[in-house]
Amino acid sequence: MDDNDQHERGLSLRIDMFGREAVEMRSNAFGDFGKPLQHIINAYAYGDVWQRTALPPATKSLTMVAMMAAAGHVNELRVHLRGALKNGCTAGEIQEVLLLLTLYCGIPAGNEAHRIAAEVLREEGLL
Amino acid sequence: MDDNDQHERGLSLRIDMFGREAVEMRSNAFGDFGKPLQHIINAYAYGDVWQRTALPPATKSLTMVAMMAAAGHVNELRVHLRGALKNGCTAGEIQEVLLLLTLYCGIPAGNEAHRIAAEVLREEGLL
Amino acid sequence: MDDNDQHERGLSLRIDMFGREAVEMRSNAFGDFGKPLQHIINAYAYGDVWQRTALPPATKSLTMVAMMAAAGHVNELRVHLRGALKNGCTAGEIQEVLLLLTLYCGIPAGNEAHRIAAEVLREEGLL
Amino acid sequence: MDDNDQHERGLSLRIDMFGREAVEMRSNAFGDFGKPLQHIINAYAYGDVWQRTALPPATKSLTMVAMMAAAGHVNELRVHLRGALKNGCTAGEIQEVLLLLTLYCGIPAGNEAHRIAAEVLREEGLL
Amino acid sequence: MDDNDQHERGLSLRIDMFGREAVEMRSNAFGDFGKPLQHIINAYAYGDVWQRTALPPATKSLTMVAMMAAAGHVNELRVHLRGALKNGCTAGEIQEVLLLLTLYCGIPAGNEAHRIAAEVLREEGLL
Amino acid sequence: MDDNDQHERGLSLRIDMFGREAVEMRSNAFGDFGKPLQHIINAYAYGDVWQRTALPPATKSLTMVAMMAAAGHVNELRVHLRGALKNGCTAGEIQEVLLLLTLYCGIPAGNEAHRIAAEVLREEGLL
Repeated sequence: MDDNDQHERGLSLRIDMFGREAVEMRSNAFGDFGKPLQHIINAYAYGDVWQRTALPPATKSLTMVAMMAAAGHVNELRVHLRGALKNGCTAGEIQEVLLLLTLYCGIPAGNEAHRIAAEVLREEGLL
Repeated sequence: MDDNDQHERGLSLRIDMFGREAVEMRSNAFGDFGKPLQHIINAYAYGDVWQRTALPPATKSLTMVAMMAAAGHVNELRVHLRGALKNGCTAGEIQEVLLLLTLYCGIPAGNEAHRIAAEVLREEGLL
Repeated sequence: MDDNDQHERGLSLRIDMFGREAVEMRSNAFGDFGKPLQHIINAYAYGDVWQRTALPPATKSLTMVAMMAAAGHVNELRVHLRGALKNGCTAGEIQEVLLLLTLYCGIPAGNEAHRIAAEVLREEGLL
Repeated sequence: MDDNDQHERGLSLRIDMFGREAVEMRSNAFGDFGKPLQHIINAYAYGDVWQRTALPPATKSLTMVAMMAAAGHVNELRVHLRGALKNGCTAGEIQEVLLLLTLYCGIPAGNEAHRIAAEVLREEGLL
Repeated sequence: MDDNDQHERGLSLRIDMFGREAVEMRSNAFGDFGKPLQHIINAYAYGDVWQRTALPPATKSLTMVAMMAAAGHVNELRVHLRGALKNGCTAGEIQEVLLLLTLYCGIPAGNEAHRIAAEVLREEGLL
Repeated sequence: MDDNDQHERGLSLRIDMFGREAVEMRSNAFGDFGKPLQHIINAYAYGDVWQRTALPPATKSLTMVAMMAAAGHVNELRVHLRGALKNGCTAGEIQEVLLLLTLYCGIPAGNEAHRIAAEVLREEGLL
């Protein structure tokens, strides 16, 4: 597959998951300096790995939430919590992942992830 | 609920997920020194958080795999990959989580997790 | 022991260590979404592990400070620095832990932990 | 070598790399509480390890950027990005390190490091 | 650019840096299960990011060593230490990066990285 | 203070804590390549920070155990568990730190630290 097609395919899925406005804001945040980074995100993450179909989008999102919270990536956790809601996950399903996190990555990681999740759920009127 | 009941309920679920032999080996590995740790695992992890029902066991296992791989906990990753297979996850579903991991936690984390997964899949005759 | 008793016993110790106002604020921060997390904190952390008596509270607090700073959990470090002062640790004792941290977890971790500690010591009029 | 001489030699190199104002601000931020930390930074980091001459300053700075970004030390990353520019690194060289980071430590680490780098490059009128 | 060309270009650079035998062994280690991972490594890492030319290969390798050691990725550190020697880095240059690491990521990280580096230098008859 | 004196003072304390044989083995493990690393350990860690007297050696050792376990530095954890026993800590005190770790850094970290501690306690005939 041509690299540009892969980029476009990825950008399109990314817009479906997070909305055009949010994606454009993040895409342009670092100007030309950020172009090669955006290519990695669009072509390699959303244009390749996220195109796979062994798992439904909601399950992928929950594993992303688990991964970002476990690695302490707070900003990316916020992004993927919004993606999880968009992909149909419920607050109760997210809570269950965060409770496993609390036991397996510790109370501070659990606390921090609950704080971000509560913010996102409030934004969406779900808390 | 009484703490002992919670412990027994957890131990029972743990044996269902990993088999009696593996659980007994891990439970006794540190003798009396490990008793309070085993209580945390049995009563608080498997007796409480794992008893929740918002997510099917296979989905919980995939988020555990994501979390353990993201945090670099290699031994625990092996345990929860076996649990994932027991809970009905396929090699293709596990692979998809590990590819997201590779993009979002980096190639070395992805490499390491594929190595452990390949070992577990070979043990089970699935590779 | 009954789980509710363990929860109450933990909550009571937690209020002794951090003050009622701070504990209530943190307990209610995420509403119902945070209830199971609070149960883990009250019943399993403060109602079980913190009830053990092999170490005096000041020593436990210093190991908590070491752990939170080493793991980069800045918010939780702030909480446990306040707990350390409440449990009778001096600024000099905390400084000594943070200097070991600087050598063993590196200058950036040491810098960050000194920054949080200086904030907490200033709040308490100790700097 | 006498410890005081090593301290002075380090402080002097540190001022060359980051400017007197920035170094004084950071040196005094924690008052007496921060004195032994500052000694570690001046005498042991800048007075010893940074005095070595196997690598040119620009290369040292790029490895510092790589290290701080990989370890998630955002504040220290900002400091060493400024040091990298002072030591003669270009935006394009920094970008190349951050793209390796994106592949080898994952997209969230890459995103975060690009964000900090864009801030520093803007401050310096380079973006 | 076509994705297959990018893959081939990357594989070719990878073989230049690490030798055909080592690359083939790693490429085949996980059979079909590892194919998509190998595509990420060949097409996206070595076929894209490593193709950039703002930095000489030796400098890229030193930042990779810094990154892998800082993130605690011991196996990947070993691989990139070999790549660094292949790309013309000296033992003294590597040592200087590892000493910065020791101060900025802590003595245990420094110890571990020295241990791996000593192994690689001995293999190559350089220690 | 002269740097050589600081080095000798540190080496002497290190030998008191870990025994001459273990220190010599570790000191010589990397030959000349490891000399500057050994200087950091002897002069800066044991010759400076460990010389401070605000905390008794046993308490310092427990915070080191907490820090090394929280950061996942398994080899260094083993070294400092031996140091903790030498400095008069009991198995019960170590266990209490590891249980706090289990709740605050998660079950896999707790498991791993218990495994290393059980090995060290068995070596010393304490388990």
